Amino acid sequence: MTYPIKIGRFKRGEEVFYGYLLGEEVVCIDGTSKERMFLRDIKILAPCIPTKIIGVGLNYRDHAEELKMALPQEPLIFLKPPTAVIGPEESIVLPPESKEVHYEGELAVVIGQKLYRPYTYDEVEKAILGYTCFNDVTARDLQRRDIQWTRSKSFNTFAPIGPFIVKGIDPQNLRIETRLNGKIVQSSHTKQMIFKPIELIFYISQIMTLLPGDVIATGTPSGVGPLKAGDVVEVEIEHIGVLRNSVESLEGERL
Amino acid sequence: MTYPIKIGRFKRGEEVFYGYLLGEEVVCIDGTSKERMFLRDIKILAPCIPTKIIGVGLNYRDHAEELKMALPQEPLIFLKPPTAVIGPEESIVLPPESKEVHYEGELAVVIGQKLYRPYTYDEVEKAILGYTCFNDVTARDLQRRDIQWTRSKSFNTFAPIGPFIVKGIDPQNLRIETRLNGKIVQSSHTKQMIFKPIELIFYISQIMTLLPGDVIATGTPSGVGPLKAGDVVEVEIEHIGVLRNSVESLEGERL
Repeated sequence: MTYPIKIGRFKRGEEVFYGYLLGEEVVCIDGTSKERMFLRDIKILAPCIPTKIIGVGLNYRDHAEELKMALPQEPLIFLKPPTAVIGPEESIVLPPESKEVHYEGELAVVIGQKLYRPYTYDEVEKAILGYTCFNDVTARDLQRRDIQWTRSKSFNTFAPIGPFIVKGIDPQNLRIETRLNGKIVQSSHTKQMIFKPIELIFYISQIMTLLPGDVIATGTPSGVGPLKAGDVVEVEIEHIGVLRNSVESLEGERL
Repeated sequence: MTYPIKIGRFKRGEEVFYGYLLGEEVVCIDGTSKERMFLRDIKILAPCIPTKIIGVGLNYRDHAEELKMALPQEPLIFLKPPTAVIGPEESIVLPPESKEVHYEGELAVVIGQKLYRPYTYDEVEKAILGYTCFNDVTARDLQRRDIQWTRSKSFNTFAPIGPFIVKGIDPQNLRIETRLNGKIVQSSHTKQMIFKPIELIFYISQIMTLLPGDVIATGTPSGVGPLKAGDVVEVEIEHIGVLRNSVESLEGERL
């Protein structure tokens, strides 16, 4: 029996490195060292450094219905800037410009190899590194006001990702759940997606070259709702783990 | 008298380097070498490598009118991926997905220093490296169909930029002109912008951290129109220079 491989990015002191999980231990995969260390002794960072994050809108039927938006005929894509990325246990910061910042729990695909205009799904498969949890944090009031989604999804800290990139799982067969202060607020299954992850990546890579570390967030199920300072939001996906972030207010302060 | 400083990125053989212009010569500014070479002997690349490109929609009154779109109350921002960047003399490639790819000549601001939530315009000024020409190539048919602008503006080669980054000019006092096969198709002046470059950067840096090399494209004046294979499109801005690109078809081939 094979079991999923979990890859992460970690920090110990000032040292940052990639590694894979072996039970409660992490095996360093940077350079030539094969040093092992206990997961509890090190900090878990965002598992990749994307050159771009491509989001997909309205990819679960029930979420399109709750926003009263029409189902897309083709995948509806948008971009989030790399500066929005935070890792597990880091804080989502509510900006003063919005009064209605929502969580959106999602499955994310992480690219492992350059991909541009593939001919086959087989080429797409080979370019995928693995899967992780993502929170497509969105200022709902600004999304409605601007029509274009860019501002509402681009604030610093609006792209929590992690904890690990998991290889060897079926992305269409995963339970996905979001909890707000321990209470289940989103509960779905990735088989409910309108466009499958592989279809999304095929589609997006016809437009732009995907590069190692790039992230495709595959859309959120129904149950989105507001975050307030002091909240703790968790996105849990079967076989991947829990992405947990607390929420604080910016209050006009500089980070 | 001071005169504008022009900074570029160049290639000679396999060597890539930054340099500044001195008449017909380029002085290398990478490392410790101060080697000089003739501009005619080296290739001019895109002058920066952005981690993100932020575009601004409808920032000239006449362009909003020609698209029959309402004037924005606040800057309307969107993102283009870094993979869309090409340099001067490289080809804009028309994808098979669109039948109506438009040029949009624009003034671009290039960031020189990290900037996040500044308090004053003075802080913004200090973070600006300089100004260059930009062509916000857009698949107009897909822009109308998708509502979200991301796909229509994100194809590879849809972000020509250059030739040089110019410091020491007033971004609100520049003639801007686009020529298609030598014929003037856009002719305006940056004083016609609704939001000034400094206001745009102040606004955008409230949302996301701007990093060195990041590009803000400040919007296009009226006169946008279609490109076809074999065309040559030039964006010329006073005191900066000419960004010239030819156009070819992808024809379903892989680049």
